[in-house]
Amino acid sequence: MFKKVLIANRGEIAVRIIRALRELNIQSVAIYSTADADAQYVKLADEAICVGGPQPADSYLNMQNIVSAAVLTGAEAIHPGYGFLSENAEFAELCESCQITFIGPKPQTISLMGNKANARIQMQAGKVPVIPGSTGFLKDETDAVKVAGEVGYPVMLKAASGGGGKGIRQVANEHEMRAAYQSATKEAQLSFGDQRMYLEKIISPAKHIEVQVFADQFGHVTAFPERDCSLQRRQQKVLELSPCPEMSAPERRQLQQIAIRATKAIDYLNTGTIEFLMDAKHQFYFMEMNTRIQVEHPITEAVTGVDLVKKQVRVAAGEPLSFDQADLKVQGFAVEARVNAEDPALNFMPQAGVIKQLKLPGGPGIRVDNGIQAGDMISPFYDSMIVKIIAHAPTYQEALKKLSEALAEFELVGIATNQNFLQALLADPVVQQGTATTAYVTERFMPIFMKRNVQEVS
Amino acid sequence: MFKKVLIANRGEIAVRIIRALRELNIQSVAIYSTADADAQYVKLADEAICVGGPQPADSYLNMQNIVSAAVLTGAEAIHPGYGFLSENAEFAELCESCQITFIGPKPQTISLMGNKANARIQMQAGKVPVIPGSTGFLKDETDAVKVAGEVGYPVMLKAASGGGGKGIRQVANEHEMRAAYQSATKEAQLSFGDQRMYLEKIISPAKHIEVQVFADQFGHVTAFPERDCSLQRRQQKVLELSPCPEMSAPERRQLQQIAIRATKAIDYLNTGTIEFLMDAKHQFYFMEMNTRIQVEHPITEAVTGVDLVKKQVRVAAGEPLSFDQADLKVQGFAVEARVNAEDPALNFMPQAGVIKQLKLPGGPGIRVDNGIQAGDMISPFYDSMIVKIIAHAPTYQEALKKLSEALAEFELVGIATNQNFLQALLADPVVQQGTATTAYVTERFMPIFMKRNVQEVS
Repeated sequence: MFKKVLIANRGEIAVRIIRALRELNIQSVAIYSTADADAQYVKLADEAICVGGPQPADSYLNMQNIVSAAVLTGAEAIHPGYGFLSENAEFAELCESCQITFIGPKPQTISLMGNKANARIQMQAGKVPVIPGSTGFLKDETDAVKVAGEVGYPVMLKAASGGGGKGIRQVANEHEMRAAYQSATKEAQLSFGDQRMYLEKIISPAKHIEVQVFADQFGHVTAFPERDCSLQRRQQKVLELSPCPEMSAPERRQLQQIAIRATKAIDYLNTGTIEFLMDAKHQFYFMEMNTRIQVEHPITEAVTGVDLVKKQVRVAAGEPLSFDQADLKVQGFAVEARVNAEDPALNFMPQAGVIKQLKLPGGPGIRVDNGIQAGDMISPFYDSMIVKIIAHAPTYQEALKKLSEALAEFELVGIATNQNFLQALLADPVVQQGTATTAYVTERFMPIFMKRNVQEVS
Repeated sequence: MFKKVLIANRGEIAVRIIRALRELNIQSVAIYSTADADAQYVKLADEAICVGGPQPADSYLNMQNIVSAAVLTGAEAIHPGYGFLSENAEFAELCESCQITFIGPKPQTISLMGNKANARIQMQAGKVPVIPGSTGFLKDETDAVKVAGEVGYPVMLKAASGGGGKGIRQVANEHEMRAAYQSATKEAQLSFGDQRMYLEKIISPAKHIEVQVFADQFGHVTAFPERDCSLQRRQQKVLELSPCPEMSAPERRQLQQIAIRATKAIDYLNTGTIEFLMDAKHQFYFMEMNTRIQVEHPITEAVTGVDLVKKQVRVAAGEPLSFDQADLKVQGFAVEARVNAEDPALNFMPQAGVIKQLKLPGGPGIRVDNGIQAGDMISPFYDSMIVKIIAHAPTYQEALKKLSEALAEFELVGIATNQNFLQALLADPVVQQGTATTAYVTERFMPIFMKRNVQEVS
């Protein structure tokens, strides 16, 4: 087992990883930017080292400085957390070349799954159901029209090397396709030096269902009970559920088999999450894979009793998985709320400032993952998610109620948070039925919430 | 279901009960003494009413004021928590006579189990193994000598109506018995107006093993996995485990069967805990029954997933139990630490004062039950136990480690706590083996701890 591990991250996930390391009797090294010098995770770590200025590019994305910090402190492995360098194949390779274990999959897997077109091609080859659309890349505009005609409009036309919204077009009919294809390929060539395109049918209504998988180097592959992350605002998950209240046990098993097939198809190592869309007929379609731990991993830990972060470290150190598929039974329901430093009354604008008072909820079935304390400064440089509250109870309804009461107990004085938004969401009848699809928050819930929220403020 | 329930208690257990009520959509009424006007549980309740001055006799033991508060606020039931009036049959009767449901067993059961000699007689009649000793009451000194000779010295000679250490004598041999019998009966007559005596063999070494039982009014009786509460300092539990690391599954089933037999023998209603001694051969002996919720109930909730406080309310409202014996499987291990406002360096003297800073632990498998926040005053009038930290993990070793790390994260600035004592206990090899008996902390651990602790201080 490793003696010392560096955490290439900050905030609550750094705290989470340090806790796992402490339980494993592994020394922890925190890295921090000058803006995070007094952060809780820095205090909690055994050692801490400044890697640069407040801008992410200067510190948490500064590969050379981070690897140097690992070498300097004698850390044998790096845990990347989520975001920042966690899905950066170049960083994983740099670690490898410096004889430092990157706690995650192999660089080539990160690279393969990072390219969404390639990921789709791999999954098709592995007989994993993907969203109906092109097989491989589109030859030209005529091919695009042909494929779109076969799968049916509307479709998404996407650049193979795409990202950040570039080279992507929603296309409603053949007429639009001709113009869209020209402009998208041009944009893709300009942005990525790669004008290859593919297309996918738009599945709607759909739920976002994802499956955490775990594989060790001895060929054991397991899939956890699914998470329902359909509740999203602007593509950001706000409330996550496990298991999906609308899925049956046979559907769960079927999806887990698909996820295991997908994991084996790419010879995956360590943990990752395969994201699917589930349509109204409960058919599953591969969307993409996250090759890292996710924000919402605690709900899976709650319903299975497995500590995913400790397992990541153990598997990276060469240990076999200590559980098999039959051990991953669903125990009750878990729901996570992401408390963000953002003001719903100001169109959810991120908030910076000093936390004057902080009161966290507790009691049975409540877990708090948190990287802040009273007196801390929330800086404007990083993600606004500051605290996660997770409720675990025998039924979905009880879990929602428990989370709602925990949120009511939560008190943060000093800066605005999305507490009232989360409360309203938990009280929403569609959310309580567990039937919300990915479009629900934006299309149905937000207009009502914003209207009421603005009235309350004015 | 009740619409409104009054909590006849304070501190962390009041918070615990209010949380359960909120989840059940029941209005909560807190009572408070003038010393507790700003307490967290008072803020968390829907209503709060002052019932008297800081002395317990004036407020939390003031039956008339408490029942009046319930009548005044329209509360239909009273949850007594632990301590104070929770095992007072007269209070339960007073509630009943005012048409207020007492959330607990019937007054006659409280009364029966409150008298330790009667409890023993009842259990013997119900074929529950009791500590070897007298059957019923001792006739006289000669009878005492005869029974003690049969069971073997040393024995405990106890007043039937005893309590608070009065009328109780440890007796090492026949010679001591003659003197002890005379003085103990005299003291019992003087203290309780009842000179009846009984005696029990002293079982040593032994573990304190207790079983939470639950019975509804439809005759369903269940017994939970045991708790090992052998780690005690001056008869006060400090660290509680569930299940007992030294017990096998067949032993667990056997003990649960005994506990169910005991529960049925006294026609018990709602939840309670039967305390046993387990000797070196793993034989169980009934010690006494607590007819209320206990401080250490969270570890049972952790390993079974049952919310005991919500169940208490539901069963008191006439609902049947929603689980049966087969549902009460042990899931992992749980350990609870009681954080007390007391100074180990000053012979564990209780501490009063203002909490300047408070940082609570969190993360996976950590539960915090807490009635305090930064800025609160710890008053000298009440029990010094202020926070409970519960760790739940797949194995006993992992649960201890998790609790130890959580305690390391815990920070309370302003008054002394027993944090270092708990930490030292968790690091102790005998505790880590799970083999400590009731004498361990006092006889073996304390001398070492005090010596080191005094050195550290000086």
